[in-house]
Amino acid sequence: MAKEITNRDENYSEWYNNLVTKADLAENSAVRGCMVIKPYGYAIWEKMHDDLDRRFKVTGHVNAYFPLFIPKSFLSREAEHVEGFAKECAVVTHHRLMTNPDGPGVVVDPSARLEEELVVRPTSETIIWNSYKGWIKSYRDLPILCNQWANVVRWEMRTRLFLRTTEFLWQEGHTAHATAAEAIEETRRMINVYSDFAREVMAMPVWVGPKTASERFAGALDTLCMEALMQDGKALQAGTSHFLGQNFAKAFDVQFANKEGVLEYVWATSWGVSTRLMGALVMAHSDNHGLVLPPKLAPIQVVMVPIYKGEEELSAICAHMEQLKVRLEAKGISVKIDARDNVRSGFKFSEWEVKGVPVRFAIGPRDMANASVEVCRRDTLEKTVVPVNNIADYTLELLDLIQKNIYEKALKFRESHTYEVDSYDEFKERIENGGFFLCHWDGTTETEEKIKEETKATIRLIPEWEHPQPGVCMYSGKPSKQRVVFARAY
Amino acid sequence: MAKEITNRDENYSEWYNNLVTKADLAENSAVRGCMVIKPYGYAIWEKMHDDLDRRFKVTGHVNAYFPLFIPKSFLSREAEHVEGFAKECAVVTHHRLMTNPDGPGVVVDPSARLEEELVVRPTSETIIWNSYKGWIKSYRDLPILCNQWANVVRWEMRTRLFLRTTEFLWQEGHTAHATAAEAIEETRRMINVYSDFAREVMAMPVWVGPKTASERFAGALDTLCMEALMQDGKALQAGTSHFLGQNFAKAFDVQFANKEGVLEYVWATSWGVSTRLMGALVMAHSDNHGLVLPPKLAPIQVVMVPIYKGEEELSAICAHMEQLKVRLEAKGISVKIDARDNVRSGFKFSEWEVKGVPVRFAIGPRDMANASVEVCRRDTLEKTVVPVNNIADYTLELLDLIQKNIYEKALKFRESHTYEVDSYDEFKERIENGGFFLCHWDGTTETEEKIKEETKATIRLIPEWEHPQPGVCMYSGKPSKQRVVFARAY
Repeated sequence: MAKEITNRDENYSEWYNNLVTKADLAENSAVRGCMVIKPYGYAIWEKMHDDLDRRFKVTGHVNAYFPLFIPKSFLSREAEHVEGFAKECAVVTHHRLMTNPDGPGVVVDPSARLEEELVVRPTSETIIWNSYKGWIKSYRDLPILCNQWANVVRWEMRTRLFLRTTEFLWQEGHTAHATAAEAIEETRRMINVYSDFAREVMAMPVWVGPKTASERFAGALDTLCMEALMQDGKALQAGTSHFLGQNFAKAFDVQFANKEGVLEYVWATSWGVSTRLMGALVMAHSDNHGLVLPPKLAPIQVVMVPIYKGEEELSAICAHMEQLKVRLEAKGISVKIDARDNVRSGFKFSEWEVKGVPVRFAIGPRDMANASVEVCRRDTLEKTVVPVNNIADYTLELLDLIQKNIYEKALKFRESHTYEVDSYDEFKERIENGGFFLCHWDGTTETEEKIKEETKATIRLIPEWEHPQPGVCMYSGKPSKQRVVFARAY
Repeated sequence: MAKEITNRDENYSEWYNNLVTKADLAENSAVRGCMVIKPYGYAIWEKMHDDLDRRFKVTGHVNAYFPLFIPKSFLSREAEHVEGFAKECAVVTHHRLMTNPDGPGVVVDPSARLEEELVVRPTSETIIWNSYKGWIKSYRDLPILCNQWANVVRWEMRTRLFLRTTEFLWQEGHTAHATAAEAIEETRRMINVYSDFAREVMAMPVWVGPKTASERFAGALDTLCMEALMQDGKALQAGTSHFLGQNFAKAFDVQFANKEGVLEYVWATSWGVSTRLMGALVMAHSDNHGLVLPPKLAPIQVVMVPIYKGEEELSAICAHMEQLKVRLEAKGISVKIDARDNVRSGFKFSEWEVKGVPVRFAIGPRDMANASVEVCRRDTLEKTVVPVNNIADYTLELLDLIQKNIYEKALKFRESHTYEVDSYDEFKERIENGGFFLCHWDGTTETEEKIKEETKATIRLIPEWEHPQPGVCMYSGKPSKQRVVFARAY
């Protein structure tokens, strides 16, 4: 198996596609740009979902569900929003097919044309704020802290599994507040929920901070984002949280009576992460042998492979493994015994390496006799022989260790690929090799655009330094308040 | 609040709509036929989701996700399927909007017409079997036991919140098997999972059995269903499980090599329940005061209402309630303290009755002094004064009792509205008042159709009697093998 994976250093992009398909995470479908998330991939997404959902509820949010379709006219209510979103999307124009009068199959029934076309939601601010109008009368109705788990569609020209697909799964939080301060606090709270999740669960270090004006969400006053560095040196935006001001409240006329009985427009936030996180997870940790999954997201944490000759040995070892499985499961560890008799152990080893299972046990007759287990870590591929008597505790600690080690490794990678550069010539040369570049920028969109044109690098975010150091813009030579993060990005 | 609810006996339909909107379960949206599921309604759906999902996993199923869009041509691959499904659906014809050249807003970009139109999935057999083709080569790849939680769209002319909406949420299981026997067993297993869930969790008695040929799913060889009786005497189909034979495997050319290396077509099932269950839940148990929720699905199981004069009393009672809350939550009971100071206790009582919270505590200064709580059950509206010392155990038992009582009540209602009728004249008269009618039928579609035309009653299912009693068809006078269940239905 493992031999079929393209070498990461030779062709990163093909290596990524290889991993996603060979680890059975996802595949392309018959519909251009739409993916099938296969059971193994979906099991990882479910773990992300459950952990995030718990974090949203702990911070006071509730789930709801809003329509898939948005009337075309809604999109143009908020001027900036339509510019950013309305263009490339799936448009429903008819509501009926009919038997083809001129041949086989079915055709669109021309008499079933909709009065107003519907757009499949690319994001739900408009349809949700149209509902909020009916929910909000007084300050007592605020805040509204809703989240929705949903599918969304953005008609992308170039798609890649998980990273950019026409349809994807995500969650979108949409909150309504009485004051700007409260909405700004919420925007911050949620980007912190995301970055805690990225670090603690995905084992992925992230930078957090505001976007520049030109990189903001369409309709937002401020966009906070988290950015991770992939192993090819490109940045990946992994989550965003937007302070929307009163823009959508004004577009949909949502006002509330404050304590003094005076009508005010409501303040809004929205925030989301998507199945793109799956792509980030793959690219942040994996190697030439396949996926490397952090134990907290691994659908199978321990796989047990029997090393045997003949049926009798196989069934004796499997019986032993069943006992170990019970002991591990009692500690909350998920276990799979691979008892297949039609493939060799080496094939199984490769297959579970490709799938990124954090820990592998191999048990043969000698291990049985010695009351030991050969334990192999996926992150380092190190093997250790461990006595069977305290194997459950050992494994629990090992999973914890692997979780930490994967994070540390990714953090070291990022640190060793983050550079302070002051010369634009040096920047242009070194950006070719990837990485995060901490550089001075004069704060103008003009400079930002020029750098982007000339180098394909964008400002990923404006870090919130404890002690920002002023300097001189590497491009224009004009004054700069602080260094910002440049990178080429997905 | 309660006064605003239409009397159930006066106008059942309006009573239902009243409950759904006044209990904050759902509301209509700006898009015709599409609903907004509000947080309180969605919290109930989440509990249904979680319980069902657990049952699916226990029976060996995994989740996956398939595209929202289906190429138009897929629908006509399976001949019966296209007849049953292809007609009323949302058709995507374009992938771009553009700024209106002749005025404000956006219009469909005529140059962005899709080569082949896409249909928003009304159900996913076709797109899923098209994927399964790539997943299945040998008997070792079988069975495939996949489920998907998703939104689907069927363009309905007349919609009602939860019961019939253009977009709805559901799960759809799609399994692939090596033998017909295994697929038939799966079909049966899943209708039993549904009926266990209906009885144990929704507290809703159901009949289970096959549909007649004319009521089958489009493309199925056999459809098992569960049917519940609503309080207006109408039946509601609450879940179906289909044995699809080899129809979809043949339509999408999905073959496997059996143990002898011979190619065979794969056998299929599909099964689903939807947010329609929410409608069933409302209609099965509720009364003129509002919802009656079974404790296992209630987002809030106990609401505590302080009876107080002045701020000091309010804060003393609330502090006491916080202590009780901790004790109840330790038993796994979900609790809400309604400390609002801008509405009267009577208003709160009504509001929580409308929302169907199973147990209400009222605590005033006298209860504080007596170390007691006034406990009110939502199902019977009975009040009891209970000593505070063992209140947690008392409540736990009470919730269990309420769950059982709601089921027993619904079962008694069904039993007292199930009639054996042998005369067609009597049938025609009595069907007007609703109920399940156990009648003899000659087994022909012709008779079934005539009865439907004349009475609006359909055969809901063919019960699988332990000892089927033959008789004479009430309509044609021809021989009948057994009684079947007739009713008017949603």
